[in-house]
Amino acid sequence: MFLNKDFLLKTETAKTLYHDYMADLPIYDYHCHIDPKEIYENKKYDSITEAWLGGDHYKWRAMRSNGIEEKFITGDASDYEKFEKWCETMPYAIGNPLFHWSHLELKKYFNDERILKPENAKAIFDDANALLEGEELSVRGIIKQSNVKLICTTDDPVDSLEYHEKIKADEAFDVDVLPAFRPDKSFLIAKETFKPWFSKLQAVTDFDIQTFEDYLKALEIRIDFFHDHGCRLSDHALDQLAYVSMSNAELSVVLQKAINGDALSVEEENAFITAMMIFYGEMYEKRGWVMQLHIGTMRNMNSKMMASLGADTGFDAVADMQFADELAKLLDGILNHSNLPKTVIYNLNPKDNYVLGTLMGCFQGPEYAGKIQFGSAWWFNDHIPGMEKQLTDLASLGLLGRFIGMTTDSRSFLSYTRHDYFRRIVANLIGTWVEEDLLPHDMDMLGQMAQNIAYYNAVKYFNMGSVDRQLEK
Amino acid sequence: MFLNKDFLLKTETAKTLYHDYMADLPIYDYHCHIDPKEIYENKKYDSITEAWLGGDHYKWRAMRSNGIEEKFITGDASDYEKFEKWCETMPYAIGNPLFHWSHLELKKYFNDERILKPENAKAIFDDANALLEGEELSVRGIIKQSNVKLICTTDDPVDSLEYHEKIKADEAFDVDVLPAFRPDKSFLIAKETFKPWFSKLQAVTDFDIQTFEDYLKALEIRIDFFHDHGCRLSDHALDQLAYVSMSNAELSVVLQKAINGDALSVEEENAFITAMMIFYGEMYEKRGWVMQLHIGTMRNMNSKMMASLGADTGFDAVADMQFADELAKLLDGILNHSNLPKTVIYNLNPKDNYVLGTLMGCFQGPEYAGKIQFGSAWWFNDHIPGMEKQLTDLASLGLLGRFIGMTTDSRSFLSYTRHDYFRRIVANLIGTWVEEDLLPHDMDMLGQMAQNIAYYNAVKYFNMGSVDRQLEK
Amino acid sequence: MFLNKDFLLKTETAKTLYHDYMADLPIYDYHCHIDPKEIYENKKYDSITEAWLGGDHYKWRAMRSNGIEEKFITGDASDYEKFEKWCETMPYAIGNPLFHWSHLELKKYFNDERILKPENAKAIFDDANALLEGEELSVRGIIKQSNVKLICTTDDPVDSLEYHEKIKADEAFDVDVLPAFRPDKSFLIAKETFKPWFSKLQAVTDFDIQTFEDYLKALEIRIDFFHDHGCRLSDHALDQLAYVSMSNAELSVVLQKAINGDALSVEEENAFITAMMIFYGEMYEKRGWVMQLHIGTMRNMNSKMMASLGADTGFDAVADMQFADELAKLLDGILNHSNLPKTVIYNLNPKDNYVLGTLMGCFQGPEYAGKIQFGSAWWFNDHIPGMEKQLTDLASLGLLGRFIGMTTDSRSFLSYTRHDYFRRIVANLIGTWVEEDLLPHDMDMLGQMAQNIAYYNAVKYFNMGSVDRQLEK
Repeated sequence: MFLNKDFLLKTETAKTLYHDYMADLPIYDYHCHIDPKEIYENKKYDSITEAWLGGDHYKWRAMRSNGIEEKFITGDASDYEKFEKWCETMPYAIGNPLFHWSHLELKKYFNDERILKPENAKAIFDDANALLEGEELSVRGIIKQSNVKLICTTDDPVDSLEYHEKIKADEAFDVDVLPAFRPDKSFLIAKETFKPWFSKLQAVTDFDIQTFEDYLKALEIRIDFFHDHGCRLSDHALDQLAYVSMSNAELSVVLQKAINGDALSVEEENAFITAMMIFYGEMYEKRGWVMQLHIGTMRNMNSKMMASLGADTGFDAVADMQFADELAKLLDGILNHSNLPKTVIYNLNPKDNYVLGTLMGCFQGPEYAGKIQFGSAWWFNDHIPGMEKQLTDLASLGLLGRFIGMTTDSRSFLSYTRHDYFRRIVANLIGTWVEEDLLPHDMDMLGQMAQNIAYYNAVKYFNMGSVDRQLEK
Repeated sequence: MFLNKDFLLKTETAKTLYHDYMADLPIYDYHCHIDPKEIYENKKYDSITEAWLGGDHYKWRAMRSNGIEEKFITGDASDYEKFEKWCETMPYAIGNPLFHWSHLELKKYFNDERILKPENAKAIFDDANALLEGEELSVRGIIKQSNVKLICTTDDPVDSLEYHEKIKADEAFDVDVLPAFRPDKSFLIAKETFKPWFSKLQAVTDFDIQTFEDYLKALEIRIDFFHDHGCRLSDHALDQLAYVSMSNAELSVVLQKAINGDALSVEEENAFITAMMIFYGEMYEKRGWVMQLHIGTMRNMNSKMMASLGADTGFDAVADMQFADELAKLLDGILNHSNLPKTVIYNLNPKDNYVLGTLMGCFQGPEYAGKIQFGSAWWFNDHIPGMEKQLTDLASLGLLGRFIGMTTDSRSFLSYTRHDYFRRIVANLIGTWVEEDLLPHDMDMLGQMAQNIAYYNAVKYFNMGSVDRQLEK
Repeated sequence: MFLNKDFLLKTETAKTLYHDYMADLPIYDYHCHIDPKEIYENKKYDSITEAWLGGDHYKWRAMRSNGIEEKFITGDASDYEKFEKWCETMPYAIGNPLFHWSHLELKKYFNDERILKPENAKAIFDDANALLEGEELSVRGIIKQSNVKLICTTDDPVDSLEYHEKIKADEAFDVDVLPAFRPDKSFLIAKETFKPWFSKLQAVTDFDIQTFEDYLKALEIRIDFFHDHGCRLSDHALDQLAYVSMSNAELSVVLQKAINGDALSVEEENAFITAMMIFYGEMYEKRGWVMQLHIGTMRNMNSKMMASLGADTGFDAVADMQFADELAKLLDGILNHSNLPKTVIYNLNPKDNYVLGTLMGCFQGPEYAGKIQFGSAWWFNDHIPGMEKQLTDLASLGLLGRFIGMTTDSRSFLSYTRHDYFRRIVANLIGTWVEEDLLPHDMDMLGQMAQNIAYYNAVKYFNMGSVDRQLEK
């Protein structure tokens, strides 16, 4: 039966690994895009449409692929009309992770095992909405029933972290909600976003930034501010990557140009990015932070839709950029300038798994076992074949047993079922290897490894918040 | 047993899907390279050598890889000698689709289940040749017994479409044979083929082409001519792809250079291709045509063999060009100029499946469900692993349920068994998912989807000819 | 049970193919990096640490990924301490080929089925070291018990081949140990290694090299010297590949610059490489040699570790260079200059399998069946998924039945178990195809093919040494 208790678990060993070792472990959600304000305010959803389709551009893409008009996606149609269109789309999406995720969420949070299709739309909609009125499905209710111990949001250096403070002060809620430092705007200096962002930076740091060194000082103030708020993790989108060296004096000129809105050459942009990454690498390493790098995205490819809906609305794609040599130079540059921090690298194009899986092996260090990590199957890869490929490639090229496991990268509080999905896939992979006699039948060793990948490796690696690190294995 | 009735069908669900839902559906062959003249004249083959080895450069490559001399491939050896060499080659080709295709064709059209190997060569040759004398294995006989409803050939803009007219006028033959518009020569203006082709264009349109605008007008005349002959489909090989904008005045200069045989810069070539594609996109969209783009080929890599045998003789390969950004700009350019037509994009290098599978998601539109299609596993990919990868990647990244299914791209009338091959692979994939409980066991939904992929989605998408579109599901 | 006699063999047909056809065949190790001096001197190992960790940078990488300090890897820790750290690392490496290889070697050569983990470290270490004292585990003992018939080492053009001569003269040892010609230093003229190497070349040839033609003559002297020592095989690392033509006069200037240590442009470097490869292609073809090309590596990416440990110490990675067009031009250039020799092309990035698998099909020739070979899964690809992918892709795109099989590329005398690993994977793949009815159940044909891939194809293809070529099938 679809979605039965042994979903994705094809062998007895897989079932044992999942049910006896992994299923009950807490969730350590170290990278997502949810809004701390909604946690603080313990938001409730008006309808399952808001919860599911309110901001999830994965689902919007699928609906557009099904020929649905924008009115029923991001437009002014009613919540029920939108949900109905979503149910129309679902049957065409078999084999897509949305089909699994949606049904897993429906089952776990709404106790509803019906299939999402037009004839079930009304009943599912009404029943789900009734349940959404209860405390169990408030944002905090979802987090608690999902057994989440820690959440890292994604935050701009100029953010006040007001809601992180408020959540921390709220004794009624004991889940760690920590910021992660995402300074993309600080190095994308040719974008329109730079000038207003730069003004904010000056304002929040109360610092008169004239030179490149000043700029770094201002950012270090913010890094310390984040550190004081429990941040131990940064995140960078490296859509553009070319290693170019310039002196600080030259970079000061580039910075002034950017502030003045003058045109920059590609070389100047790249030199600025290079220098910023070397600076950030040093800052993170000093403080024991983890640096996350996301590589291989093309964004906002549809200029018409960009003009009408803005960024992050479902018009991004997998890039085919060559990055091996430039990424290697960047990592080597940071290593030689200071030392590499713990680093997680995510690639969007699975063709690059072998580049990443071998390149990270050139930069490991004795400070930490598994210091450089091959990030979990990200974004367009977070489905069965994508996860199995990431796990298999990582195992083939590095040490699977040191893997820090699943990144939800989610934009929805209902996405915690993806951890369950991931764990089942891990259990199934290892279980298959055992039953094919590719591994010793040593359940102590394998069970511990499964638990490490599901939870303990991440707890130990990130080393943040109040999560009990004595439980580590 | 090899090639038994459940060939490729590993599960009961797969068998049900194939036998009960897909096996008896007609064939809608929307893209191939067969010659309408041979259909009109109802060609008969002198021998199985002519039918199999007459023009199929897939088989030639395999023979060359087996060290066979060119004499026995494209040379003056006898039909039997060539067939014998083909039978020598076959056993080394296990795992190659040629091994399956050849045996499938032998079984279906010649009722012969023997294995192609040297000791069987003479008997197979003689028996097949005897059967080729009958009406059943004339070109029309093959088409009829294959249950083909529609065939789209591949035609140059200057083609007279004489044989399409004659076939249409022939009441004895009720299969639609429609042209497809393949204007590669119109934008490859730096090639030797351009000048003679341009003269033909002037002749068939009776149009004095001076400017770029004139050129487009002449081509629009041909597009209308094709439209009047039932064409609803175009086809482009984009071996070179870089988005460059130029004004029409500049393009007129470029065109004049090309007509005069003057050297062109790469930028001029690319600007011309860009402008032509934007023009064609508009033309197709206005008329409800489908635009097919083929990406990722390196052609005629062996200059010695090119000199002796010419193009399309088996010396092409998979390219590793980066195209994501340029293709995105092209699609966006067409979208902003007019609107995108329905578009099918084929890529030859499977490493690019994730680029294509996500990029198409940025350009869908409400005019049609599944408007932008990830083309079926093409050329060097049309085997079990290639088809399974294309289907899985499409499912992971988009909507498998909207897929328009198999493209034969064939150069032989005996290739219709590839549709059967494709259908079995689809049935097996979905059947596996069901039996692994990855899908609801809902045979109504899945059976309908399998039928749509096998036939109805294409019928509806292309919307051409006299095929009964009321049968759509 | 892990590592039982049917390890990797999932079906009855696979078991039959392996045990009845492949298991007892000799090993023809046509490409490795072992030292002929150690064979001549019949080296014995002080400990399993020396045998395993003495020079194997695969294992070093894994240890570094596990956070082990360099002291315990390449440093001055005791052999037992190093071995203990290796045993600590092993359990984290499940799914990595090192896990299988190490246990296969432990079982085969040390008759020890224990799992490599900390609690077993001492006992395994002591038992293995005791066995290493016996003749069975001397270098010659390992070679003999592994049933190796021929070994090709990797040698510089200026090498004296002294130990090859001595081994040949030693009647007590009947295994062919032949040199392979690896002239990378002869075309990497911008590297520091060039000048000292060039001096050696002048010395060993006693030749005053002034022009590019002189240079080629000197190298031809060395090629003949190698030929006289039984060499029939060359090897090239093409980390850089761009086809650039220059006249011999221009190349003489480039050579003089290199000799003088003057800076060279990238174009000059590439032109030199191009000309050298065309020269070598002609030399090899004339003498019936095989040319091996290795493509797709980035080397020495960690400059700190390069400074402290030097090259080939575990800091290389898979590159993502685009090479299709340039490699095609190079092959076409050699073909047009003389003729292509038998050529084996290895690629490190599996994303390029389709480029290679199709490009080789453009350059086959009637001189030899399977003249251009898709090299076996190399370096970072020599594990189950990598080998299965190489075999499947080769089968899909070419003729698996002509494949010359496994390359160990090894740096250790204990690596011969990898041939067993490879053979089991081949048997399992073909066996699976048979049991899924994708092939005729013709064990004569398939058994012979399996034997050819395991041994006979290579014997026939390389055509060297005193190996009995009458046994060919």
